[in-house]
Amino acid sequence: MSKTAITAEPGVPMIIITREFDAPRDLVFRAHTDPDLLVRWLGPRDLTLTIDQYEVRNGGTWRYVNTDAEGNTYGFHGVFHGDPSPDAIVQTMEFEGAPGHVCLQTVTLAERDGKTLLRAVSAFQSVQDRDAMVASGMERGVHDSHERLAELLARQQAS
Amino acid sequence: MSKTAITAEPGVPMIIITREFDAPRDLVFRAHTDPDLLVRWLGPRDLTLTIDQYEVRNGGTWRYVNTDAEGNTYGFHGVFHGDPSPDAIVQTMEFEGAPGHVCLQTVTLAERDGKTLLRAVSAFQSVQDRDAMVASGMERGVHDSHERLAELLARQQAS
Repeated sequence: MSKTAITAEPGVPMIIITREFDAPRDLVFRAHTDPDLLVRWLGPRDLTLTIDQYEVRNGGTWRYVNTDAEGNTYGFHGVFHGDPSPDAIVQTMEFEGAPGHVCLQTVTLAERDGKTLLRAVSAFQSVQDRDAMVASGMERGVHDSHERLAELLARQQAS
Repeated sequence: MSKTAITAEPGVPMIIITREFDAPRDLVFRAHTDPDLLVRWLGPRDLTLTIDQYEVRNGGTWRYVNTDAEGNTYGFHGVFHGDPSPDAIVQTMEFEGAPGHVCLQTVTLAERDGKTLLRAVSAFQSVQDRDAMVASGMERGVHDSHERLAELLARQQAS
């Protein structure tokens, strides 16, 4: 089974994530842009995702909240730069627990032989911001998300 | 007279610009957010700036075009993340001559003794993108812009 690779070089304020999914890229794109699908895979398995707002267009704003079993909430929000497409979903992201720290995320989807290579680049405003994101347990969230997304894509193609 | 400092470390996809202006920060902020003022200072002296769109609000889109004496045009566009304030103007930026290459800019304004320290951080999606921006002659544009802004602020305070 494909594995998610996460790269975060010392001293460089970026995180690069790659993963191959066994699905056509239109399906992978739809899983990123349809809020009804997004809530089924984004985030760690033990958190519930609630989407407040998800305007998939240039200048569209989005906000979602992760809630854990104790009821603690973790809000995130941002805006889309450009109209999202399988070639690029570009958006800003701010964790509301650390207001004022914004990153820029670009997701690109490349299809080859019916499989899709996802590449997600996050650019931070400082190395400290990037390191704080890594220290927050982001890695577990990404791995869980990608496993859940792979499962969702498999179910969609089986049905 | 204050000088603009531009930092672009090798291997790190960022540009950090600082400059002190001899004006209260509200004036400096207004010069950044009022399109009628922006056209009077932003960009190299030998180009004309035309603003198509400038929606200063969370999710607001902006676009402007620089035109040189030969009529060549250089378009830029982006979106604002959050409502701009003197504490932070956060926006994406894409040069239309290199579509798909987006950066995230944060301008913060700190006032001390009636002067304002401007700090502008640009985070790029790759070192190549950052290096291309530096190679494009960005430095001259920043120096010209800041000189022109200093002149505009002086005129506003004299009148």
